[in-house]
Amino acid sequence: MKNEIYGNLILETEYWKLFLAPSQRYLGTSVLSLKRECPSLKDLNNDEWEEFIKFVKTIETLYNKLFKPDLFNWGCLKNKSFRDKNPKPEIHWHIHPRYGKSFEFMGVKFEDKEFGYPPSGKEVKIDENVQIAIVNLIKENLVF
Amino acid sequence: MKNEIYGNLILETEYWKLFLAPSQRYLGTSVLSLKRECPSLKDLNNDEWEEFIKFVKTIETLYNKLFKPDLFNWGCLKNKSFRDKNPKPEIHWHIHPRYGKSFEFMGVKFEDKEFGYPPSGKEVKIDENVQIAIVNLIKENLVF
Repeated sequence: MKNEIYGNLILETEYWKLFLAPSQRYLGTSVLSLKRECPSLKDLNNDEWEEFIKFVKTIETLYNKLFKPDLFNWGCLKNKSFRDKNPKPEIHWHIHPRYGKSFEFMGVKFEDKEFGYPPSGKEVKIDENVQIAIVNLIKENLVF
Repeated sequence: MKNEIYGNLILETEYWKLFLAPSQRYLGTSVLSLKRECPSLKDLNNDEWEEFIKFVKTIETLYNKLFKPDLFNWGCLKNKSFRDKNPKPEIHWHIHPRYGKSFEFMGVKFEDKEFGYPPSGKEVKIDENVQIAIVNLIKENLVF
């Protein structure tokens, strides 16, 4: 289920799963989701934090090399689940690489029209073959 | 300078400064700013992460008690500095308590009209006396 919601699975570790987000409004947009049920960041344990910090370093370093963004937006929001009457929030981080210049990648032109401003929630789906190619590119270069 | 940008200082620790944000669109909205210059989360050191994690636990636990939000949005974005030609991004976290129900606090009615959705960037300034009273309430109850 999570796989469908958060995108294409890139890596599963002891506590987290990394996905390429279904919307590639900003090339490389990813979701890092905690595997166990846990509604609030205050309840993460030390081992989960430790692995999260390793992900921050690994993702920023690798995506800098692959996609050359200008910066990263990290957010743990959980708003969507509160649209339900019985919210079941799950810890997951949105990672948005942000780009000052548009460029082509695998034949697709990516433009960050909101550069300098918070990420837009508007969905941008790309060709499924390109989506899979990005997942594979990350997988091949990811050392965790 | 940071004091003016990020709001009213609540607490300064070894590595971070906690502020009550100038905009109180969501009661208790705060900013947690790293004291040293550091452009990317991947470059935080272990001691800075450790103190950050302590802040996450302390802030969520205390604000739950004082303000009773339904959830917290945490975000490290740094977009604004990239509107300049020579961006100087600084690590700072936006903490938005989010509220499913409107209520009065110190005579001011707070409404979270975007509940269930990402925080709005629209600024809501409240009476300076109320702003200071909120800062003092947090200071009096904060054990770090």
